[in-house]
Amino acid sequence: MQQVVRQWRAVDPAVDDLGTLIAARRPGYSLPAALYTGTAAFEADVDVVFHRHWIVVGVEADVPEPGDVYAVDIGPTPIVLVRDDAGEIRAFHNTCSHRGAKIVPSGRAIVGKLVCPYHQWTYELTGELTGAPHMGLDFDKALHHLQPIHLRNVAGIIYVCLSNDPPQDMDDFVAAMTPRIAPYDLANTKIAYETDIVEDGNWKLTMENNRECYHCAGNHPELALSFHSSDFGFDPTDLSDDERADAEHLAATYAERTAQWEACGLPSEAIDHVAGHATQFRSQRLIIAGAGESQTLDTRAAVRVPLSEAVATGTGDMHLWTVNGWNHFMGDHAVVFMVLPLGTDKTLVRTKWLVHKDAEEGEDYDLANLISVWTDTNREDAALVKIAHEGAMSAGYRPGPYSRFTERTLDDWCTWYIERMQASGYGV
Amino acid sequence: MQQVVRQWRAVDPAVDDLGTLIAARRPGYSLPAALYTGTAAFEADVDVVFHRHWIVVGVEADVPEPGDVYAVDIGPTPIVLVRDDAGEIRAFHNTCSHRGAKIVPSGRAIVGKLVCPYHQWTYELTGELTGAPHMGLDFDKALHHLQPIHLRNVAGIIYVCLSNDPPQDMDDFVAAMTPRIAPYDLANTKIAYETDIVEDGNWKLTMENNRECYHCAGNHPELALSFHSSDFGFDPTDLSDDERADAEHLAATYAERTAQWEACGLPSEAIDHVAGHATQFRSQRLIIAGAGESQTLDTRAAVRVPLSEAVATGTGDMHLWTVNGWNHFMGDHAVVFMVLPLGTDKTLVRTKWLVHKDAEEGEDYDLANLISVWTDTNREDAALVKIAHEGAMSAGYRPGPYSRFTERTLDDWCTWYIERMQASGYGV
Amino acid sequence: MQQVVRQWRAVDPAVDDLGTLIAARRPGYSLPAALYTGTAAFEADVDVVFHRHWIVVGVEADVPEPGDVYAVDIGPTPIVLVRDDAGEIRAFHNTCSHRGAKIVPSGRAIVGKLVCPYHQWTYELTGELTGAPHMGLDFDKALHHLQPIHLRNVAGIIYVCLSNDPPQDMDDFVAAMTPRIAPYDLANTKIAYETDIVEDGNWKLTMENNRECYHCAGNHPELALSFHSSDFGFDPTDLSDDERADAEHLAATYAERTAQWEACGLPSEAIDHVAGHATQFRSQRLIIAGAGESQTLDTRAAVRVPLSEAVATGTGDMHLWTVNGWNHFMGDHAVVFMVLPLGTDKTLVRTKWLVHKDAEEGEDYDLANLISVWTDTNREDAALVKIAHEGAMSAGYRPGPYSRFTERTLDDWCTWYIERMQASGYGV
Repeated sequence: MQQVVRQWRAVDPAVDDLGTLIAARRPGYSLPAALYTGTAAFEADVDVVFHRHWIVVGVEADVPEPGDVYAVDIGPTPIVLVRDDAGEIRAFHNTCSHRGAKIVPSGRAIVGKLVCPYHQWTYELTGELTGAPHMGLDFDKALHHLQPIHLRNVAGIIYVCLSNDPPQDMDDFVAAMTPRIAPYDLANTKIAYETDIVEDGNWKLTMENNRECYHCAGNHPELALSFHSSDFGFDPTDLSDDERADAEHLAATYAERTAQWEACGLPSEAIDHVAGHATQFRSQRLIIAGAGESQTLDTRAAVRVPLSEAVATGTGDMHLWTVNGWNHFMGDHAVVFMVLPLGTDKTLVRTKWLVHKDAEEGEDYDLANLISVWTDTNREDAALVKIAHEGAMSAGYRPGPYSRFTERTLDDWCTWYIERMQASGYGV
Repeated sequence: MQQVVRQWRAVDPAVDDLGTLIAARRPGYSLPAALYTGTAAFEADVDVVFHRHWIVVGVEADVPEPGDVYAVDIGPTPIVLVRDDAGEIRAFHNTCSHRGAKIVPSGRAIVGKLVCPYHQWTYELTGELTGAPHMGLDFDKALHHLQPIHLRNVAGIIYVCLSNDPPQDMDDFVAAMTPRIAPYDLANTKIAYETDIVEDGNWKLTMENNRECYHCAGNHPELALSFHSSDFGFDPTDLSDDERADAEHLAATYAERTAQWEACGLPSEAIDHVAGHATQFRSQRLIIAGAGESQTLDTRAAVRVPLSEAVATGTGDMHLWTVNGWNHFMGDHAVVFMVLPLGTDKTLVRTKWLVHKDAEEGEDYDLANLISVWTDTNREDAALVKIAHEGAMSAGYRPGPYSRFTERTLDDWCTWYIERMQASGYGV
Repeated sequence: MQQVVRQWRAVDPAVDDLGTLIAARRPGYSLPAALYTGTAAFEADVDVVFHRHWIVVGVEADVPEPGDVYAVDIGPTPIVLVRDDAGEIRAFHNTCSHRGAKIVPSGRAIVGKLVCPYHQWTYELTGELTGAPHMGLDFDKALHHLQPIHLRNVAGIIYVCLSNDPPQDMDDFVAAMTPRIAPYDLANTKIAYETDIVEDGNWKLTMENNRECYHCAGNHPELALSFHSSDFGFDPTDLSDDERADAEHLAATYAERTAQWEACGLPSEAIDHVAGHATQFRSQRLIIAGAGESQTLDTRAAVRVPLSEAVATGTGDMHLWTVNGWNHFMGDHAVVFMVLPLGTDKTLVRTKWLVHKDAEEGEDYDLANLISVWTDTNREDAALVKIAHEGAMSAGYRPGPYSRFTERTLDDWCTWYIERMQASGYGV
């Protein structure tokens, strides 16, 4: 009967031998179950993905003025973004150099200095330790500053990397995305609304769900109003004649519009840096369906004040996927999503709706209209992530086949994940 | 001091070396603590007992008509019972062959086909995959049907085995129990009421609590009205003269009644297939005390419409214990219990009260009267399982001695458990 | 890249190699993170500290009369204190010798005998088993008494040790503390109030927080009214001239008062048995600030009836720290704290306010006034323990430097912990 044990173990979600699991991933298929459900995989994910890669944690509007701080928890690790007196945004570990207490509560605040509530150790906004009572004359404050964290502000979106040796290809990301995001002038935006939802699934299932829109037509009636479903792939043999004509027409329109946008200095071509890159991203300027203005129920701008003159009309949806986030930059507003892991089957999805800082709620935009599409879409996605996780827990789960037409980006995402685990020393 | 560590570890609930624990079980005594409280033992239990043995998951009345589905979670594994268009009851893994999402929410529903909400993959009630959009011309749907699960419908009680190699002695169970249950005509019953309670203890403590009625006199005043306590064993030296006379009288009555029942074609003798059998069960027709009709507070039938003419009067309580269930079939109703593991110290006890499908609530039975005895008894048992688990967590726990008079069945149950773990490759 | 993995792992809270962690502790610094946050360390703590050392679990007033029982859970292990008919206080494992069920619910009750609710096994208050129905004539009840636990009643404070081989230096503690506590006549006290709070942090962070008052000035405005902050250490170069003069004056006052107290037969000198002792404790009679009478908001006695004539006036605060508790004995009342571990990041802090048994609430004391200072202080401490634990979870946590002036006692506490782990076979 020993053989039965081994057969079963091969599909048992309790198996946490990461090397075996990573080696078992079959291209074109979803991951082995225990990479979604196991504790060992989750801890490795936090270590590799969230602690050694560039991840999105906020936006400039989180810390608009000197003295503004914004504390975020990256898995178990609290960090804090600070706008110092010179206007520079810095990131630090949000733990006191004395006995490690978390200094600033999660969320936004305004401070003069960073003072640990435990024993009143006091740090400047530059991280310098200037107060540490009763430590003695021989105590060297210069050795006990706040631990700085690598930070890149990419035209208003804040990325950090906790590692002392961050992936260098972040430079490629910055070079590619700065000219794409800069026209939206995020430095002059404010956060009109923010939501945190906790999805009952592994963070990778949250990301996979985002990496394909195969599921959208059947699940997101509100979002479907503003996108062209053929944007997300299709089996050419699986279309009606009308659908094929529509797809061909859309392809021609994309060629025309993309050329126009690029000619106007608005980069728009698809860039796809996923498999093979440490700092993964995908970006493309998309055509919005219907009235073509914004991701709203009537596909028209929700905000009267545009983000900038440069993007005020006809600039579609600048779309960006990164390892733990997705973004839609439109003429009237931007929506920035970030995913933070809470546990094997608990994932935080944080959504920020950005509008021009001069836009007034009630006057220039109706908040319910602004947030309606993505509030509904997030809720619908959470339900899908939950059933995906419940299935991955099952003894009946088998890695499933991705459609090469509609789920290629998802296959790439899994390939990226396996590559990064191996590059970090897991499963090799 | 190293010796102290080792001594302590021998009784430490944190010890999860299953082989050592299994070898340490002493006949006549309860199990070593960590088999009740440890994570490794719990995962092995799910693997061995719930994923490789025949377990009860439902009744015919859960899926009375074609198109009825009933989704049940066996530990981490969602399955679904389906009545197909030909009237056959089938069981499948409730996970999509695409990306593994759970297809049907837990509980009962009526469907035309099984459609995964994620990407609308569509399965017939036979499990055949008939819709998988955008997968390409070369995608072979025949390879991606729902995964079937072995199922046996034993006169209306549904047993499944998730293993591809289910224990073959299920045939003995079917042969023995079909003639015992068939007279109750469960195909013509409906579920009058169903409860789910979560007990704060390991599932084996739930089962052990059920395997003896030594605790009943002191804990179940409602149930005690309808049973003869000497049915559950006694130390002959520990009885008063009156009690001894009663026990002798009852034994004589049993001999007489059993002979009568058997002569009428109602199998009634005790069958005890526990230790030494993969598919454990125990069955016997019991005499109901008092008015002798039903497990109610007045020991009279709660339902005016009998389950069948064959069992309408004087047929006692056909009692059945299986590995994760217990059952009482009486003339007017049946109560079917099933136990499903939720975690080391969380156990679902699901109870279904079955009555004839033509019996009308309010007219033919009073629901409160029907469910009163077992609702109270379940609640009382949950409290006992909780203190048993709390004790097993203690550094002061020692495997305790079973009474050879009143807890022999429980000793057999533990022996069965150890045998099955060893037969499945654990602890050998 | 393999090197990166190893570097990271050195600060990874997931590392649970106790030997490595224990060896890594650097004198003068807080513990490596995973000793606060890891599961392995928590289980070892329960095993070593709570199951093999003398810990405080209650007071005489918990079981004032014969037949009084008080059930306490020490981590996973339920125990029960019993006042037997001869007036002796005994401790037993609160688990039945039959099948291990927890016999008495947590908390206080009055009983004639200890009867297990499961099968009515019956024990005398001496632990003797006198009833075990249906176990057979050959069952030897004398072998199945309740398991006794070592207990020492130190002038009214109850300490137990679950080990069969308890640390023998408990005798030193008893010898030192009996004359210090006896004058407070705790046998004639009652529990005026009791609170349980659950702190969201490791029990060692709860204890460390208690072992220094460096944090008090900034966090405990209510408690600060009744203590002299220089009592808890200071950097002499970090004082203003006024502060230095105050500290010198207080030191002179201590010398004078301590001599007076000792002359009156009230032991008062500091005793510091921490590092190097199995049974750690620290005790000193402290001067109360302000009116000098009690730890209240007005520093005056909260209770009109003193605990005894011997301590009625001018006897300050007899302060005692033990491994899982702290205590303040004052003329009008005593406050006894005990810490019980619930999980890696959950800790029970139980506080008992004792007053003379003849003091009447409303008449002799105002309850709100009696409990105000420590209720507030406990709540404030819970917030500090929470941020300390959150910080210890972080990848950014580094063991931090203790002040040699204000945190020496805490450094000793960590040294004691490492010593005891090693003495018990961990990390050697």
